[in-house]
Amino acid sequence: MPTKVTIAQHILAANEAIAQELRQDLGARGLATINVMSAPGAGKTTLLEQTIRRLRGQLAIAVIEGDIETSNDAERIEAAGAQTVQINTRGACHLEAHMIRSALEQLDVGQTDLLVIENIGNLVCPATWDLGEDLRLVVVSTSEGDDKPAKYPQMFATAQVMVVNKLDLLPYVDYDLAKVKREALAINPRLHIFEVSCRTGAGLDAWCEWLLTFAHSALQEITR
Amino acid sequence: MPTKVTIAQHILAANEAIAQELRQDLGARGLATINVMSAPGAGKTTLLEQTIRRLRGQLAIAVIEGDIETSNDAERIEAAGAQTVQINTRGACHLEAHMIRSALEQLDVGQTDLLVIENIGNLVCPATWDLGEDLRLVVVSTSEGDDKPAKYPQMFATAQVMVVNKLDLLPYVDYDLAKVKREALAINPRLHIFEVSCRTGAGLDAWCEWLLTFAHSALQEITR
Repeated sequence: MPTKVTIAQHILAANEAIAQELRQDLGARGLATINVMSAPGAGKTTLLEQTIRRLRGQLAIAVIEGDIETSNDAERIEAAGAQTVQINTRGACHLEAHMIRSALEQLDVGQTDLLVIENIGNLVCPATWDLGEDLRLVVVSTSEGDDKPAKYPQMFATAQVMVVNKLDLLPYVDYDLAKVKREALAINPRLHIFEVSCRTGAGLDAWCEWLLTFAHSALQEITR
Repeated sequence: MPTKVTIAQHILAANEAIAQELRQDLGARGLATINVMSAPGAGKTTLLEQTIRRLRGQLAIAVIEGDIETSNDAERIEAAGAQTVQINTRGACHLEAHMIRSALEQLDVGQTDLLVIENIGNLVCPATWDLGEDLRLVVVSTSEGDDKPAKYPQMFATAQVMVVNKLDLLPYVDYDLAKVKREALAINPRLHIFEVSCRTGAGLDAWCEWLLTFAHSALQEITR
């Protein structure tokens, strides 16, 4: 159906234009921005809760929380101590740049260093939509099978960071961690990989340290 | 963007027309059809492998296997003993009725009782697309969090069956099974719910027995 493809390209091009404006605007406000993506239930929100708690006092984080329905995740993030705005897409499978632009109007980002966008739980559609971010993070988990990079390659090709969560479940699942890392790096050799358990805290120090360095160097870049 | 909505409605209406034709065609061939959906890694393929093995000799099953990339799952299903056709969507986030119509041309369904369509791993988009099926099955797992019905309601509203997989992981995760069932039934009071572990085999006999009864009664309905 070539008509369908052409329309989709127009919509994507319009999104891309808004995303580029947004990237400039976020830079002008001195905000480093991360787009966090994963399958439903891989642990995006839990990773953010842990990250916000650990970096309190070192990095001021605000969160735009994307969900199809409910504000459960935004409530969890606020309880962890970050300013939060909820986007409910009412059925839509991904966030788009215009939604981020609107959500930003509801945030007071004067004191914020890092803006985190938690996308809809979906390993497919969000990979196609630029949200004006500086960094794309994909979260996978040891309980969702070790074939995800091979089966959903675009997500891994367009991310800069992969966090493997739920290390604590490794003894109870059939998950070949070496294979996941090998296949993800075959798709994207520059991927930074972190292995964590948000339940036990394993690996979170290394991740938070890296994020802090990233945010500070992005801010230096932005304000230079 | 009303234009976008109108276009999407046209595409969905075209799919619906093909799905209705397909439903008649599948009925005329004496095939009961199931559309199996879930988040990535919830265990659709493993559930199908176990179901095919357990029902061998009682129910002739053929599978249309949907994946964005790879034929890993089709190979697993063939090894379990079912005739299989692979659809690779090359980036698309769901199956559509015209893809099923094309895939059917590659299947010899003369001796088949039950056609199973394994959709793309995605809790959002597949819910909107009718594939001509008689039954919609959503698989959730105990490691993906107990908020999935509330956060992805359309999937649960349009399914007739929910299988909760990975019961064996319950001791190691924070998962309130009663809450999941309660919230799923609040969205869809007629949902049939099965609790299984494809790893230990728990609950699979009850599921297979129900499926056998469903397939036989659907076939009686079809051939009446």
